[in-house]
Amino acid sequence: MKAVQYRSVGAAPEVVTVPTPEPGPGQVLLKVTAAGVCHSDVVVMSWSAENLPFPLPLTLGHEGAGTIEAAGPGVETLPPGTPVAVYGPWGCGGCLSCARGQENYCRRAAELGIYPPGLGAPGALAEYLLVDDPRHLVPLGELDPVTAVPLTDAGLTPYHAVKTSLPKLVPGTSAVVIGTGGLGHVAIQLLRALTPARVFALDVTEEKLRLARAVGAHAALQSDLEAPDAILEMTEGHGAEAVLDFVGAPATVDIATGCAAVESDVSVVGIGGGTASVGFGITPYDAAVRAPYWGSRSELIEVLELARTGVIEVQVESYALDDAPQVYERLQEGQVSGRAVILPHG
Amino acid sequence: MKAVQYRSVGAAPEVVTVPTPEPGPGQVLLKVTAAGVCHSDVVVMSWSAENLPFPLPLTLGHEGAGTIEAAGPGVETLPPGTPVAVYGPWGCGGCLSCARGQENYCRRAAELGIYPPGLGAPGALAEYLLVDDPRHLVPLGELDPVTAVPLTDAGLTPYHAVKTSLPKLVPGTSAVVIGTGGLGHVAIQLLRALTPARVFALDVTEEKLRLARAVGAHAALQSDLEAPDAILEMTEGHGAEAVLDFVGAPATVDIATGCAAVESDVSVVGIGGGTASVGFGITPYDAAVRAPYWGSRSELIEVLELARTGVIEVQVESYALDDAPQVYERLQEGQVSGRAVILPHG
Amino acid sequence: MKAVQYRSVGAAPEVVTVPTPEPGPGQVLLKVTAAGVCHSDVVVMSWSAENLPFPLPLTLGHEGAGTIEAAGPGVETLPPGTPVAVYGPWGCGGCLSCARGQENYCRRAAELGIYPPGLGAPGALAEYLLVDDPRHLVPLGELDPVTAVPLTDAGLTPYHAVKTSLPKLVPGTSAVVIGTGGLGHVAIQLLRALTPARVFALDVTEEKLRLARAVGAHAALQSDLEAPDAILEMTEGHGAEAVLDFVGAPATVDIATGCAAVESDVSVVGIGGGTASVGFGITPYDAAVRAPYWGSRSELIEVLELARTGVIEVQVESYALDDAPQVYERLQEGQVSGRAVILPHG
Amino acid sequence: MKAVQYRSVGAAPEVVTVPTPEPGPGQVLLKVTAAGVCHSDVVVMSWSAENLPFPLPLTLGHEGAGTIEAAGPGVETLPPGTPVAVYGPWGCGGCLSCARGQENYCRRAAELGIYPPGLGAPGALAEYLLVDDPRHLVPLGELDPVTAVPLTDAGLTPYHAVKTSLPKLVPGTSAVVIGTGGLGHVAIQLLRALTPARVFALDVTEEKLRLARAVGAHAALQSDLEAPDAILEMTEGHGAEAVLDFVGAPATVDIATGCAAVESDVSVVGIGGGTASVGFGITPYDAAVRAPYWGSRSELIEVLELARTGVIEVQVESYALDDAPQVYERLQEGQVSGRAVILPHG
Repeated sequence: MKAVQYRSVGAAPEVVTVPTPEPGPGQVLLKVTAAGVCHSDVVVMSWSAENLPFPLPLTLGHEGAGTIEAAGPGVETLPPGTPVAVYGPWGCGGCLSCARGQENYCRRAAELGIYPPGLGAPGALAEYLLVDDPRHLVPLGELDPVTAVPLTDAGLTPYHAVKTSLPKLVPGTSAVVIGTGGLGHVAIQLLRALTPARVFALDVTEEKLRLARAVGAHAALQSDLEAPDAILEMTEGHGAEAVLDFVGAPATVDIATGCAAVESDVSVVGIGGGTASVGFGITPYDAAVRAPYWGSRSELIEVLELARTGVIEVQVESYALDDAPQVYERLQEGQVSGRAVILPHG
Repeated sequence: MKAVQYRSVGAAPEVVTVPTPEPGPGQVLLKVTAAGVCHSDVVVMSWSAENLPFPLPLTLGHEGAGTIEAAGPGVETLPPGTPVAVYGPWGCGGCLSCARGQENYCRRAAELGIYPPGLGAPGALAEYLLVDDPRHLVPLGELDPVTAVPLTDAGLTPYHAVKTSLPKLVPGTSAVVIGTGGLGHVAIQLLRALTPARVFALDVTEEKLRLARAVGAHAALQSDLEAPDAILEMTEGHGAEAVLDFVGAPATVDIATGCAAVESDVSVVGIGGGTASVGFGITPYDAAVRAPYWGSRSELIEVLELARTGVIEVQVESYALDDAPQVYERLQEGQVSGRAVILPHG
Repeated sequence: MKAVQYRSVGAAPEVVTVPTPEPGPGQVLLKVTAAGVCHSDVVVMSWSAENLPFPLPLTLGHEGAGTIEAAGPGVETLPPGTPVAVYGPWGCGGCLSCARGQENYCRRAAELGIYPPGLGAPGALAEYLLVDDPRHLVPLGELDPVTAVPLTDAGLTPYHAVKTSLPKLVPGTSAVVIGTGGLGHVAIQLLRALTPARVFALDVTEEKLRLARAVGAHAALQSDLEAPDAILEMTEGHGAEAVLDFVGAPATVDIATGCAAVESDVSVVGIGGGTASVGFGITPYDAAVRAPYWGSRSELIEVLELARTGVIEVQVESYALDDAPQVYERLQEGQVSGRAVILPHG
Repeated sequence: MKAVQYRSVGAAPEVVTVPTPEPGPGQVLLKVTAAGVCHSDVVVMSWSAENLPFPLPLTLGHEGAGTIEAAGPGVETLPPGTPVAVYGPWGCGGCLSCARGQENYCRRAAELGIYPPGLGAPGALAEYLLVDDPRHLVPLGELDPVTAVPLTDAGLTPYHAVKTSLPKLVPGTSAVVIGTGGLGHVAIQLLRALTPARVFALDVTEEKLRLARAVGAHAALQSDLEAPDAILEMTEGHGAEAVLDFVGAPATVDIATGCAAVESDVSVVGIGGGTASVGFGITPYDAAVRAPYWGSRSELIEVLELARTGVIEVQVESYALDDAPQVYERLQEGQVSGRAVILPHG
């Protein structure tokens, strides 16, 4: 089968032919309908060999949706042809975190050598995808796999971050979204659908700011050094009770903490290498600064329910599998609006 | 192998010989080390054929611990001989509740015909037990299986109920435990270990009240019509912020709501057929009356951790498998102190 | 000044002349701009002398808004003329509940003889209203006092009940509102604004059902014995994760528990004398049935913020003070749509 | 009356004579029984004139307990002679935070020029203390004012920080306390009383480590660069689910984040000027780093309840008012074990 692989450190990804996998006991083989292309792959492909946490070559793609092609012995759950989305942050299934469905925070994955598809295990940018356990599949039902597949990361990751902050986003509060691309433009929709907060969006291009407004931001501003003061002014000096930074670069994390209110949540979601400074007299009282990662199994079910009722909608550009290398280039250049999705079978 | 079965409605359970099961793909066979005997079986065996939710004959025993004897294809998690406890409230594994590990509240178990072992599926009162999925096993490590096995129900069920009420049990509050037997005497220990609340225990025999005091109750009283007034007096008229009724009979649920404070939790855990009356002007403002059931996978891990550090300890009487029918008789007569445990292999 | 008083048990309320109060130290006198008329007054006026918890005559009106007319010694907070709403469930200010701003659950109010205005203390259906402490005032700013005054009860009470259930109302869940009058039609708007849940409304007249749909209910149905089955069918057999009964009559509480899902909240808000039956095998697992009362100080601030941004809007009919007795008649006959508001100064 | 004042930047505090205050309307005058001396005063007195947020001279002492001496007009709550503790973080009383009793996070205190006693307003290191509002008093009942007075800060501050983390401190988890002095030795007791977590204490002198063990720490270690590895080893590589840094110096905040587990809370409570670095790949997933401040009114009531039942006990050294300047010297030199308390009337 064809697959898009990252084959050597620093090289561009390539379309190659690899053996089609077969499902062993307890495993499921998917025929991939759609696979999302994520900016975090670009960051990972910029890392040095020492920092890369998994061996190469690697089939990319950590957002996957497909239909059940075949199941190994012991798997009876889903009939062939059923459309499903893949829960990506695979864990051991048995530790305290996994027992809560929070496999994204599995305590044993590193020790056991368990990796997410596309981030260590063979990913979804291929004609077929091997899934290690049926618990990592969520039925899509009538949902369109092309617009639904980004929900497995670009939807789930901001949903997880937003859900943490829901108790703080009571009427009269505000939220700031920094970076209104693949994840950020979903975060804006989630905040509007799930909270009464005023939503401010920050980004650097007029096109991104337009998208932010189109999907519901009450205001969209340039993401620069003046942004915190502007946010403070629009919130009577309080700042925002939730700040979500989907860039995570050194410049944006400073903006993020600069916008924060007393008792706020500041979530550094983007993996841009920035480091926030937190301390007494530095950050507002009890502003909790954290770096969340992906989301839980139940949160994926929940975010798919939101798409089912039309509450959120991912902006999608779709491409053939052979186009994947160019898509990564466009992504690096900031030319993708919303999310790029690959359709391996056209 | 030998097994203790409930074979026909109204009859006493019998020790019979049945084929030893073999694990299919995805399944695990346990050699049973210890199995708990629960009073709720006595209640279930008193139900009429119409009310019985599963077919007979049934191998009893919903509390089980054992060692891995054999695993079917696709199961690689645990090596043979590993001592494990069984998480009993089996669910579908895929619905929203199961994705959170709350299989006790599975939304599809009834529809799919999934039953807990000993409550529909063949139970642990046998030499071997077939477990449908490795996710239903929790490693015991150094824990003694005989004293640990009751934690899978007599520990997990009160832990789940107590955990719900933890945010209400701040310093200065009180909790009431009605029925200080298998589950209740664990609840008292949990409340003492996890909260600063004063703990009042109610039961009908002096022996049970002695046990309640021995495991940590600040006061133990007769469970009768005067009990609510006594509790109100000892709480400056407020009542208790958490009331846990492990009997659930018509008489005890009235006592339970009678002890409740404003904004309290009243948990009717016992299946004694009682019905609490709740309404404006009837129960204190915002007293939440509920009937919880068993517990989640992560809660079982947590309750085993408590036993590991010696914070809770189940009082146990142990018996041979052939004694099981008499043990049920003793249980019905209220003659078991703490929990009765069967050791199928002696 | 003129005031509307309930003067003897069983008699209709009357417009009378009483002395205009003067503020003592720590007190504030309001010139009443608007006062809401609530159906619960009708229920209270139907009670016998033994059940009435306060002495007569009583100036009615537990929803009040006005401007600062005068302040007693020691009150410096608000300048004369400032428009404010009155937080009604006055408490002692010092107990654990009051220290959290939950004066609605004050532990000492009964003992100290503290009553809400219009429910024991002189109420807002008068030209002037004496408020015992400036902490019971919330500035209205630009909000219209006529449409805002019902928020102090008809907004705050459902907000408090809904807020309790927010963590359960994740995507894919449902809520049921029984009784779509003064409180219920606000509850529907709150559920739509604050949650992604599907909202079902139940009432008995076609006009009320039309209002329910107009303010956002996804479906509105007759509130009768078939309603629970209809709700179950529309929720794939699960039932609703939150049920709010604003009638609280014997018939509606049975409907309420009949609609409830596993792990749901059932809030009996209406004071119609109904009693819900809760128990193992009677109500779904862990469905928490409760009777909440009014709301906290911070919740009133929050609900006013929702009105400020136009997220909720109370349907209002306004009347002169002299019309109050007829308004109570209309209310008893179910002829008021939304909320009736009295303007004592025209 | 005599008072201990900080009179000019950089100078040592002095005992001076000042006019005895008189309570105006709404105010209460206390005869001070006991006042705590806090290390944070030493830090504040090291600040430059530009950084000092209030004018001098200032009567010190932000922990106060006394008896009601006199009340101004409009205050009827408490009879003369009643022993009370003072809630220190005074706020406006009306904003969203104050309406929840969280005056420590008042949104308007700075704007309105409201300061805590001893930190801007005249403090408790004097014979008499003026309290601005009776809501800032909590009755002590039978509690000894000398050992109870430190609970208003040295008890309340760690209680607030610990309470935030309670949901994370399930069985099997761990907590780390850095700095086992006035606040830290109370934090250890709180963690032991309210959670099943293992408690590790870090400090630099053997005497402090002995105190830590004596009040309940499971292990006490040198607070140095090896400490994080030691904690990781004792927690099977996970780290601690709650880390409380009562020093807050540059060295300790690095230790704090180095000990943190995935999904932990890291609370920088000490005002030692340290800054924690937080980011993706820097801190564990979803470790929430924050700088909380003091506590809420209801939390003070709760922490006093813990002392009432003997669950926590503050180690106290008591002194006369004239000794206060020397006590500050001893504090600066790290020679005070537990908390120093001044008795202005001997």
